[in-house]
Amino acid sequence: MGILAGVDLGGTNIEAALLSEQGKVMSHITHPTGADEGYGRVMENIISAVKKIKKDKEIEAIGLCSPGIIDVDQGICRFAGNLNFNNVQLRRPIEDAFSVPVFVENDVNAAALGEWRFGTGKGTDNFILVMLGTGVGAGIITDGRLLHGKSNATAEIGHTIVEKDGLFCNCGGRGCLEMYSSATGIVRMMKQYLMKGNYSSVTADIQGDWDRLTAAMIAQKAAAGDKLSQQVIREAAEYLGVALVNYVNTFNPEMVAIGGGVAKAGDILTQPVKEFISSRAMEVQANDVSVVLSSLGEDAGTIGAAAVAIESIKTVKDL
Amino acid sequence: MGILAGVDLGGTNIEAALLSEQGKVMSHITHPTGADEGYGRVMENIISAVKKIKKDKEIEAIGLCSPGIIDVDQGICRFAGNLNFNNVQLRRPIEDAFSVPVFVENDVNAAALGEWRFGTGKGTDNFILVMLGTGVGAGIITDGRLLHGKSNATAEIGHTIVEKDGLFCNCGGRGCLEMYSSATGIVRMMKQYLMKGNYSSVTADIQGDWDRLTAAMIAQKAAAGDKLSQQVIREAAEYLGVALVNYVNTFNPEMVAIGGGVAKAGDILTQPVKEFISSRAMEVQANDVSVVLSSLGEDAGTIGAAAVAIESIKTVKDL
Repeated sequence: MGILAGVDLGGTNIEAALLSEQGKVMSHITHPTGADEGYGRVMENIISAVKKIKKDKEIEAIGLCSPGIIDVDQGICRFAGNLNFNNVQLRRPIEDAFSVPVFVENDVNAAALGEWRFGTGKGTDNFILVMLGTGVGAGIITDGRLLHGKSNATAEIGHTIVEKDGLFCNCGGRGCLEMYSSATGIVRMMKQYLMKGNYSSVTADIQGDWDRLTAAMIAQKAAAGDKLSQQVIREAAEYLGVALVNYVNTFNPEMVAIGGGVAKAGDILTQPVKEFISSRAMEVQANDVSVVLSSLGEDAGTIGAAAVAIESIKTVKDL
Repeated sequence: MGILAGVDLGGTNIEAALLSEQGKVMSHITHPTGADEGYGRVMENIISAVKKIKKDKEIEAIGLCSPGIIDVDQGICRFAGNLNFNNVQLRRPIEDAFSVPVFVENDVNAAALGEWRFGTGKGTDNFILVMLGTGVGAGIITDGRLLHGKSNATAEIGHTIVEKDGLFCNCGGRGCLEMYSSATGIVRMMKQYLMKGNYSSVTADIQGDWDRLTAAMIAQKAAAGDKLSQQVIREAAEYLGVALVNYVNTFNPEMVAIGGGVAKAGDILTQPVKEFISSRAMEVQANDVSVVLSSLGEDAGTIGAAAVAIESIKTVKDL
């Protein structure tokens, strides 16, 4: 297999990279997405970004990952809120521009494939990546294959129920994990405690401006010994624990990796998650699983996109 | 493919059948398991049962399903509480006796394969069978393949958490679905309401003997209009709804089938489950899924065991 292009389409920026078959980034470029200017302009920007890194090199295939629900077979983005996409063709315009095979995938699924093929999940057959950011998503590899389901709308761990009659969620449900363990959920929880009159050293930092409160700040304060911040992170970790016990008892994986902005909290987050799984998951499954931090850093998106292309080419060759 | 033997090993009885490739039962026999007399006798009983139905016919393969954690590759039962099995060989003694390929699988997984290949799940690619009996288990087919995980300890929906700080469960966890939606859970819930002084017409039937209270009785009373029985079944259905929303948002299946003794309650159980999924699952996933009752009746076990053999032979031929 030759050189691959990996494209990570985000709401703000397009990250494009040339990568080797071993997932090594050879060159990289960041280009504004231009989502405000509509679908046509976004596709032009993707093609322009790939042209800039490709130059006169031959590439074997292009992997593209996008937020939202992706029809992998048709190469269509069925829906992506932050891109204003509804049933738009992602694959064809890029294939037309470069005359090489193009493979598209949901961004969290792609990140899971990347982490599984080139990161901490290497060598496992059953691997789950959970991304904790503004939202919470996952990508799941079972018996060596990415979980796709009917409409590629799988692994929505952020919208699994961790409190039966819990907080109302944007998805229309209630008590979703995302309401408790996302960056947004952590900030909301801290605000509630502060409004009830509890003390935290974050108060001095934000100086009455609630908008300055972030999950990263709360994680830092927790690491520095602030009791309320520790409690908030522990509660977020326990809710994550509930969702992960359910996944561990369902998928019997070798590894669960945790990534995304909230994962920067490190041990303060992962330690109570591990304890919760040890005490609440079934014995065989708890013994089989390791809970770790994801290992691919800033390049996770483009490496994931390249992994999608590699995986798809391998599957075609296997048929 | 020729005639197959399907063997359903249970705690009390061994059910053995000869089946066509189309899953049609040609002959059937019931034989006591003899679990009290130990592993050796159980294996003798299985072989004896297969000999009795086989007579002088040629069979192509034997499928065997067993409760517990099954090492499918090695043909070993790692653990099965009700059979007193700990790391015993299931495959080899049968292969030695009949000189045909033998394939073993967990019983709920086998039932899911049977229901998927020959029952209500036919034609789907993503199918979940949930069995509600004394315990609660599931078998999951994703993208046309049975979910196995690292140790074949997957799909333990009965031990997914539906109440974070809920009732303590035998598995060591808390708030497991099995504590609320199994036959045992339903009986426990009714007892609690009665002990608190609530009225139900079951009281007249059991005449003070709590041991006569069954989930089937409660389901019958609910169908006949008993308010408390209706409430108990609805609560059990809502907890099942929580676990199924989590599965639907995770697997994006075309179909969820509900089987086992508790499923005999029919619409009284499935209607609130469907409503819960409609109102709480994500839109795409809720639209994609049908919730139905399982269709294979008494022969589900042996048909499932035969499906395991068929599936395994097909997989080998595909390689």
